[in-house]
Amino acid sequence: MSDLTLYVDAPYTSPWAMSVFVALTEKHLPFKLITVDLEKGEQRDIPSLTYRVPTLVHGHFSLTESSAITEYLEDLFPEHAMYPKDTENRARARQIQSWIRSDLLILRQERSTIVVFYEPTTTPLSAQAQVAVQKLFKVAEELLSHGGEHIFAEWSLVDLDLTIMLNRLLLNGDDVPPRLAAYARRQWQRPSVQAWLNLLPTQLGD
Amino acid sequence: MSDLTLYVDAPYTSPWAMSVFVALTEKHLPFKLITVDLEKGEQRDIPSLTYRVPTLVHGHFSLTESSAITEYLEDLFPEHAMYPKDTENRARARQIQSWIRSDLLILRQERSTIVVFYEPTTTPLSAQAQVAVQKLFKVAEELLSHGGEHIFAEWSLVDLDLTIMLNRLLLNGDDVPPRLAAYARRQWQRPSVQAWLNLLPTQLGD
Ligand SMILES: [Ca+2]
Ligand SMILES: [Ca+2]
Ligand SMILES: [Ca+2]
Ligand SMILES: [Ca+2]
Repeated sequence: MSDLTLYVDAPYTSPWAMSVFVALTEKHLPFKLITVDLEKGEQRDIPSLTYRVPTLVHGHFSLTESSAITEYLEDLFPEHAMYPKDTENRARARQIQSWIRSDLLILRQERSTIVVFYEPTTTPLSAQAQVAVQKLFKVAEELLSHGGEHIFAEWSLVDLDLTIMLNRLLLNGDDVPPRLAAYARRQWQRPSVQAWLNLLPTQLGD
Repeated sequence: MSDLTLYVDAPYTSPWAMSVFVALTEKHLPFKLITVDLEKGEQRDIPSLTYRVPTLVHGHFSLTESSAITEYLEDLFPEHAMYPKDTENRARARQIQSWIRSDLLILRQERSTIVVFYEPTTTPLSAQAQVAVQKLFKVAEELLSHGGEHIFAEWSLVDLDLTIMLNRLLLNGDDVPPRLAAYARRQWQRPSVQAWLNLLPTQLGD
């Protein structure tokens, strides 16, 4: 059915690599997983235009950038949908994916995914990071204001992106509003998410 | 036909705002343009989930993130296509859009779009930025290795993204390989691009 190889970072701390791993797992697509040691410069060996992880190689076709990869998978393998189908919700999903990849940089720096996947930090959040935290909470509350289990009517890959952002705080012991904490804890139990966590040499946060 | 309002930054230096402006112009869609003074915090007044520019408001629907907005426009108004239609090229287009928005940060910092839209800088590129420049050239050469006028068989919005990146150097007087310089100069003459440049109080680089 498929000839798929996914290149991810060696310590499994890239949320974008995780996103593609979860996408392939949700779609029940078999794939080969190759880890790349970025500190050793092994990304130069990836058959890729831009030498980044994640890279997905599908037969002759090599692709980087997590959101481009997961849209490609959704186009090619529409079964087990990961994005909403109607135009407005699909646009909102793309907005949130892009927003989480480009905004709140200070929060992503002060609460790296080491916190999510390996161990908490004792460094308090700076004033600037606290502003980013309040923006994250405001957007998340608005996206979940309907009271449902997911951002959209069905689970989508955007739920994973938002959950990873919330878990930068939650798994570190930083305060998270109860509804958002309950959402993130529930999302974290999803089997495709647990499949990634089970790759980690040391498992935390599950 | 449409009820479209585009919010852009007041000095017109956001390449992502320019991308949406060019998209609307290419599609011959009438729209209202509103400038937002980010230094005065006017983004708080944008009817938007995340208070960023560009924001597109279409009737009741408000959307941020340039690539989400332009995909939405392509979905709703397919005439005058801005993206390739086949799955692999569409994926490649998404890859490049995302890559240009997330990689080569040091180059985007040392050659800001002030250079592109207003005036050159005399600061030499750091060694780290020069590495980013070489990566940009390598990727651009590979994308244009077919010798054609555009990245894909037809013009796409990705040509604008790549051209803005090259113009951070070219319009500053930094060395750019001849083929890439010729490509960027030709792309810069496109009427939709010139329409943006004509908004600037001081026009440079055309
Ligand atoms: Ca690639
Ligand atoms: Ca587990
Ligand atoms: Ca919005
Ligand atoms: Ca002109």
